[in-house]
Amino acid sequence: MKLYTAPRAPNPRRVEIFIAEKGIAGIERVAVDLNAGEHRTEAFLRRNPLGRVPVLELDDGRCLSESRAICAYLEGLCPEPNLMGRDSDERAFIEMADRQIEFGFFVPLMQHIRHTHPGFAPLEQPQFADYGAVQGVRMREAAATLDATLAGQAFVAGERFTIADITAFCALEFARLIRFRAGDAGLAHLQAWRDRIAGRPSVG
Amino acid sequence: MKLYTAPRAPNPRRVEIFIAEKGIAGIERVAVDLNAGEHRTEAFLRRNPLGRVPVLELDDGRCLSESRAICAYLEGLCPEPNLMGRDSDERAFIEMADRQIEFGFFVPLMQHIRHTHPGFAPLEQPQFADYGAVQGVRMREAAATLDATLAGQAFVAGERFTIADITAFCALEFARLIRFRAGDAGLAHLQAWRDRIAGRPSVG
Repeated sequence: MKLYTAPRAPNPRRVEIFIAEKGIAGIERVAVDLNAGEHRTEAFLRRNPLGRVPVLELDDGRCLSESRAICAYLEGLCPEPNLMGRDSDERAFIEMADRQIEFGFFVPLMQHIRHTHPGFAPLEQPQFADYGAVQGVRMREAAATLDATLAGQAFVAGERFTIADITAFCALEFARLIRFRAGDAGLAHLQAWRDRIAGRPSVG
Repeated sequence: MKLYTAPRAPNPRRVEIFIAEKGIAGIERVAVDLNAGEHRTEAFLRRNPLGRVPVLELDDGRCLSESRAICAYLEGLCPEPNLMGRDSDERAFIEMADRQIEFGFFVPLMQHIRHTHPGFAPLEQPQFADYGAVQGVRMREAAATLDATLAGQAFVAGERFTIADITAFCALEFARLIRFRAGDAGLAHLQAWRDRIAGRPSVG
């Protein structure tokens, strides 16, 4: 298998941490240079017509994109340690938590950065700074909600580490680009959780 | 089980069609009046702190939100007809297709409507009309991409009906609010697929 990836981008990082948690070896990495526009080349668009990383190319040539779908595939290939739920009940509640982080926190953060950060002007045209500013407010509200959740439980989806922690961690780490840190924002539970996750061998 | 729902909204409709395809009976419906702000009442926020429909309340009192997570739960409860994949390989590729529709088509459409339609001003404050206009363009591009996909296969995720068809159908039907119809936009494959889906008993 080959993973087409961009090392510093948050979505590829979700898959990299997932792979490391599983201890899956033998996946070749192919770096895609987003700044050079390699994700818009014909060769890459054959693998993902939407032009986004990561993409997992299977040994039979099929290409799987969308980080969470790649994780679902890898979970089937390597079920332990379980990260997405052991039965449909747990799977559903973990998917709920993962989606709430993705739509409530990750997406507003990305929209905020894409529409307000000068470094993202080449990727997001036109940028709408006023819209982006409101997304920054929503991201901070979602961080506060997550902080409240983590006051009552050890991990994003409950009492064990799951894919929802990976999604939240990659978003929070990406927020450093705009100098957002949970502790500085008074979100002590979120900061403590972040520091615990950052200490996992998969993250290093 | 109780499903908290709003009959005309597109996300609840995804779950309703999923339930109808499965032929699941006995789920009580509780209508939530979004225009009256019932989704922001304390009683509802206890069921979903994000204040969104649909929410599935289980018999043990736990509340599951996020349409796709609700579907994952119901798929476990009632595996046939299968709509989300029979093994992890198929599940991953169906999730890829479903997410591509959701992020590429459904979300830009919703953003377009929420930021440009006067009827959505109470739900989306402030509205950014210029941003919304660009999302309308992206939604139309995604519709054209889906049309091209459907030129080569019978359903959104391949050769059988899946949850990805439900997501795409509910989005396309919601686009009627802005008078977007696939056929009028010259997207004949998308229109033919839409008409086939509209003929299913689950949709009626």
